Amino acid sequence: MRLTSEQRLDEGVLEREFSLGEVPGILWTPASASVPAPLILLGHPPLGLRKMYPRLVDRARHSAAAGFATATIELPGSGDRPRWPAAEQARAALRRAMEAGEPVSAEIIDALILPLVDKTVPEWQAALDTLLSLPEIGGPVGYSGGVISIGTRLAAVEPRISAAVLFAGSFVPRAMFEEARQVTIPLHVLLQWDDEGNDRQAALDLFDAFGSREKTLHANMGGHTGVPQFAGDAAGQFFTRHLK
Amino acid sequence: MRLTSEQRLDEGVLEREFSLGEVPGILWTPASASVPAPLILLGHPPLGLRKMYPRLVDRARHSAAAGFATATIELPGSGDRPRWPAAEQARAALRRAMEAGEPVSAEIIDALILPLVDKTVPEWQAALDTLLSLPEIGGPVGYSGGVISIGTRLAAVEPRISAAVLFAGSFVPRAMFEEARQVTIPLHVLLQWDDEGNDRQAALDLFDAFGSREKTLHANMGGHTGVPQFAGDAAGQFFTRHLK
Repeated sequence: MRLTSEQRLDEGVLEREFSLGEVPGILWTPASASVPAPLILLGHPPLGLRKMYPRLVDRARHSAAAGFATATIELPGSGDRPRWPAAEQARAALRRAMEAGEPVSAEIIDALILPLVDKTVPEWQAALDTLLSLPEIGGPVGYSGGVISIGTRLAAVEPRISAAVLFAGSFVPRAMFEEARQVTIPLHVLLQWDDEGNDRQAALDLFDAFGSREKTLHANMGGHTGVPQFAGDAAGQFFTRHLK
Repeated sequence: MRLTSEQRLDEGVLEREFSLGEVPGILWTPASASVPAPLILLGHPPLGLRKMYPRLVDRARHSAAAGFATATIELPGSGDRPRWPAAEQARAALRRAMEAGEPVSAEIIDALILPLVDKTVPEWQAALDTLLSLPEIGGPVGYSGGVISIGTRLAAVEPRISAAVLFAGSFVPRAMFEEARQVTIPLHVLLQWDDEGNDRQAALDLFDAFGSREKTLHANMGGHTGVPQFAGDAAGQFFTRHLK
């Protein structure tokens, strides 16, 4: 892990940019980290860390106030990371379908999401190896955010993830419903009910498929990016219940 | 309003039983009611106040700890109140359909629920007239609980109700979807996802139909009566946000 920059935010939160091999990321730790802090991995859509930064730092600040460290990494194919041709083709196919007003086929969804999940999950796991070796970070670990298929795969395969807040706002490949049955950790699923770009029924079906004994669905109004503040607070309370 | 009994509960909460005409009820007020307390009307299924008492007093205690007065009334046809023949017939038809393993028809649901809503809502409104005249009770007023069609009608027609927590665990007559569109107050809807006796799709459709700009659906595991403590806490936070 190579530190590339470091700054203190207003509330004393320490923000450190790093790279892990070719993967850039950001780590935020609370001001008063006298004991190792539990860690929340911040998931996000593949729009690039720079574009997502304002929303990510807001989530990091709220989490730090509750005593959590947070970290995020650049997704493969986003930001300054190299594109890969298959992903570009899948995105072009999606654009064509949407411009033609056609339904987005299962094949396009698979091509768009599955390779991203396959590439991202091992990178999150490698980041976890490194982050958990830092003295200021302890367990347990949570995952919070989208892409919901990435969070689902991580929750299913990575035993160090103890609880997850999953944002149901992206396409769900058919194979994920089967993977969802393997998930047994406590889940808190956020759904924006009137998110026009999202398949609400797929989100409800995925929630139904999760194997977890404790799973909660919070559906709210406000569009894709309009998750109300009180819903963010409730997600924070979920982590406090499960990671502290 | 005639007081029929009065006791102090352990936490200092004052519990008063009353009757309003032929309608019995219970009022709980917080220990330290130096200023008029906001009021939450506690809805419940038509099983009789005596049977529901343990769960109602638990909700009353939690609400009092958060500074709310609560009140409930016996539903028409429940407890010691006179039965009415049409309701008995509807219940018998429901029993026959369930014993025969047949789907419960829309006609049975209408016969079971609509007269109950028609009779109960004016009784809640009369209770509200009286309760709001007490010096220890102020506004605003919330409604919390089932039967969801009673809460929906109340939220649609009674302007003194400012926010409602609705429990989606009972049959929904077809006409209620239209009434739901008239509701504009903030709503917090609780759904037990694995409630076998409940029509989950009808609950989701009703949630979709509500006209409120702020509406939240919380779905949890645990069966019809297994609403988790954290879900009760979240409902309490909703009232604190909207009634204080």
